[in-house]
Amino acid sequence: MDVETYFPVIRKLTKEQRALLLESVTEKQIPKGTVIYDGTTGCTGLLAVRSGLLRAYILSEEGREITIYRLFERDICLFSASCMLQSIQFDVNIEAEQDTRLLVVPAGVWQSLCQESAALANFTNELMADRFTNVMWLIEQILWKSLDKRVAEFLLEEMTVEDSEVLKLTHEMVAAHLGTAREVVTRMLRYFQNEGIVKLSRGTIEILDVAKLEAVLEEK
Amino acid sequence: MDVETYFPVIRKLTKEQRALLLESVTEKQIPKGTVIYDGTTGCTGLLAVRSGLLRAYILSEEGREITIYRLFERDICLFSASCMLQSIQFDVNIEAEQDTRLLVVPAGVWQSLCQESAALANFTNELMADRFTNVMWLIEQILWKSLDKRVAEFLLEEMTVEDSEVLKLTHEMVAAHLGTAREVVTRMLRYFQNEGIVKLSRGTIEILDVAKLEAVLEEK
Repeated sequence: MDVETYFPVIRKLTKEQRALLLESVTEKQIPKGTVIYDGTTGCTGLLAVRSGLLRAYILSEEGREITIYRLFERDICLFSASCMLQSIQFDVNIEAEQDTRLLVVPAGVWQSLCQESAALANFTNELMADRFTNVMWLIEQILWKSLDKRVAEFLLEEMTVEDSEVLKLTHEMVAAHLGTAREVVTRMLRYFQNEGIVKLSRGTIEILDVAKLEAVLEEK
Repeated sequence: MDVETYFPVIRKLTKEQRALLLESVTEKQIPKGTVIYDGTTGCTGLLAVRSGLLRAYILSEEGREITIYRLFERDICLFSASCMLQSIQFDVNIEAEQDTRLLVVPAGVWQSLCQESAALANFTNELMADRFTNVMWLIEQILWKSLDKRVAEFLLEEMTVEDSEVLKLTHEMVAAHLGTAREVVTRMLRYFQNEGIVKLSRGTIEILDVAKLEAVLEEK
């Protein structure tokens, strides 16, 4: 297994620490649709995505769910090992959205190595900061969700105007149209892409799912 | 200065590391209403609240703001030092909501000590996990906000029924009435208390601001 590819930080561990980590890593094949972590399954461990796709979501008391982020190839799932962190007091569910191959590092091993290795602890910190950034972006979308609707509306309009589902549009053009920053539009379009609504390639935006795009407009 | 009271983790540093940290710490007195961090002010550093109150909020493009958490005595503000963490890609604003006395550790000093000390890096991790928990709770409130309205509604009803602003109610009683868990009600009531809407004491809930409580019902 090419553990170093997924955890480059292990180069900063001592020989003994590295050996401990390497011998603890296992590989798992998860069929599409499996919920691999739900807060009751115990501490699954740190998960690195070798192939496939994981989805993290939270669940309301009434069973409504909302996606908080997705983890693609080479991403690392920290909250499946949230038992490591006393201060994590919320439940995230993790589901394999495609057939997924994972590397699993047991939470106990990771945690004990974090006690010894500042490099590993700082790496963990950056992982959490990454997810924090995802979640803050989501909050902004939820609170001031005009932008997702505005982008959706614009794409639907363009589709009608051009009479095509493949739109020759750069992110700059969309941003200029909406009077906002290019980065903001790029993030939103990537979010749409993650949701399977559009496919992005250089200079074009292809609408894959018109119904879903229209549904964005309907959301409260 | 009693730096150790606010950063007990410094006991786990070496003598040299501790000396470096201690000599870098400064004290600041911040008048009520001052915005001490807004993402453009550079990296203010880690802030420990000695007295007073800090409020962290985010701002929409249109200038609407929402409180994401508050920091009370002995809390530590990490995001005022978010330049330390490459993966933090969002802006938080920090305001002194009361006259506030702070201990300030420069971000550069903290960051370089985190490179050396696993204990400090893990402590930083727990700080972030704490704030993450705050933010996830906020997301749940925003998404499934029926609960804040239901609690508000119940308190307003009780106020009318009892013809008093001091309600003899335990959190269990509120939870039973709303068919939810006591912990959830406690968190919501504490949130209301932080917002200056109620004052909690053993077995009673005092309504301090009826208008604000009614406003909760009006929010979309």
